Amino acid sequence: MTVALVGAGPGDPGLITVRGLERIRSCEVLVVDRLVAPELVEEAPDDALVIHRDELGQEAVNTLLVELGRDYEVVRLKGGDPFVFGRGGEEALALAEAEIQFEVVPGVSSIAAVPAAALVPVTHRGVSDQVTIASGHAADDSEPDYEALARPGGTLVLFMALQRLDRVARGLIEAGLDPSMPAAVVSRGTMPDQEVVTAPLDAVAEAAHGLPGPALVIVGQVVSVRARLAAVAAIAANA
Amino acid sequence: MTVALVGAGPGDPGLITVRGLERIRSCEVLVVDRLVAPELVEEAPDDALVIHRDELGQEAVNTLLVELGRDYEVVRLKGGDPFVFGRGGEEALALAEAEIQFEVVPGVSSIAAVPAAALVPVTHRGVSDQVTIASGHAADDSEPDYEALARPGGTLVLFMALQRLDRVARGLIEAGLDPSMPAAVVSRGTMPDQEVVTAPLDAVAEAAHGLPGPALVIVGQVVSVRARLAAVAAIAANA
Repeated sequence: MTVALVGAGPGDPGLITVRGLERIRSCEVLVVDRLVAPELVEEAPDDALVIHRDELGQEAVNTLLVELGRDYEVVRLKGGDPFVFGRGGEEALALAEAEIQFEVVPGVSSIAAVPAAALVPVTHRGVSDQVTIASGHAADDSEPDYEALARPGGTLVLFMALQRLDRVARGLIEAGLDPSMPAAVVSRGTMPDQEVVTAPLDAVAEAAHGLPGPALVIVGQVVSVRARLAAVAAIAANA
Repeated sequence: MTVALVGAGPGDPGLITVRGLERIRSCEVLVVDRLVAPELVEEAPDDALVIHRDELGQEAVNTLLVELGRDYEVVRLKGGDPFVFGRGGEEALALAEAEIQFEVVPGVSSIAAVPAAALVPVTHRGVSDQVTIASGHAADDSEPDYEALARPGGTLVLFMALQRLDRVARGLIEAGLDPSMPAAVVSRGTMPDQEVVTAPLDAVAEAAHGLPGPALVIVGQVVSVRARLAAVAAIAANA
């Protein structure tokens, strides 16, 4: 029996991979995260056991996968990509240590798909050829290393930064980022109720106040490409 | 008529998205890059016009998309994700400026899927919570900014670095990276002939000598997770 660690993509159910969907359709057990689209859960066979792991800590999920993986074809369906801020590595290690066969089926990560859905290319010739991805909310609840995030240049993409965006923006500016650097917050990216707010870095927290999560924060000159794409896209949409 | 900028994923044709495959199956014109899997090209309708853009420069591709997009349902199929080192932003801008409707269908980018296929999670709790992605080969043929790449910490993922890996590794070490930092080169990631080489940063160029492209270079402590996953995965595979 095997456990497939499958990326569900950024939210829009059409953005799962062909292989990921195949695995769901042939599973015996489906273990899903809260943010996975319900349309994908419905693709599991009628007699499959569906387990929502909302209430379970990571250790309990690891144990569950090991126990179920001994006897069943298990799909572990995770938002985005299992190996990009998805803790798929921890689940894979638990399975490997228990000598249970596993497979990783990568997914479309939010890191590029959500900016794309907001018409922001994370790299753009002559504007940015480098991307740094980090969490705005460290695992131990400490502050991000703003010095490290402000230094590399290029585009900065932050997960889980919405709730403390005021502090994050201030930290980045104090570490040397230009307060007028274009920034965007994409709330519920790729989903029908997606919202996008853009503002200079020093005003983005206020502009994004009250947006629902999950949200991705993008900081960098690439955000300005959006205005050029979105303005004409609006014209074209009305043509 | 519209142009869909579709990410084909990292190589393995099973890693295209469900929506991307739908778009291919209903297109009138398919414009494809060299590295796209032939299995995906074969999914286009029999009467679709298939254009391989190998010989065309970026300007010519932009013009082609604008001209064809006026009259046909066009799919522009690109390796990886259109907006991550894919120059999709340039194509989108050309279409927007010509007031031609376009849509971006994100793909699985190599940046996480290729490390995953090599059993390297780019983030891993307690090991790395930050990823920097860059090209080893700047557009203007200049050297990468090694200072900027060496500073942020976390995981470093480099595209197009294989051919000059000796210089890139030296540049990173001179900029302050530990010569013994684990590094990996994944050649033809996610494809049946994938090869993975791991070595300390100061020895990885020699270890990877002669590997075929395309290749992705990963530098960081996360590479050491691979050994723990791969060793037991091999046991499990033989069980």
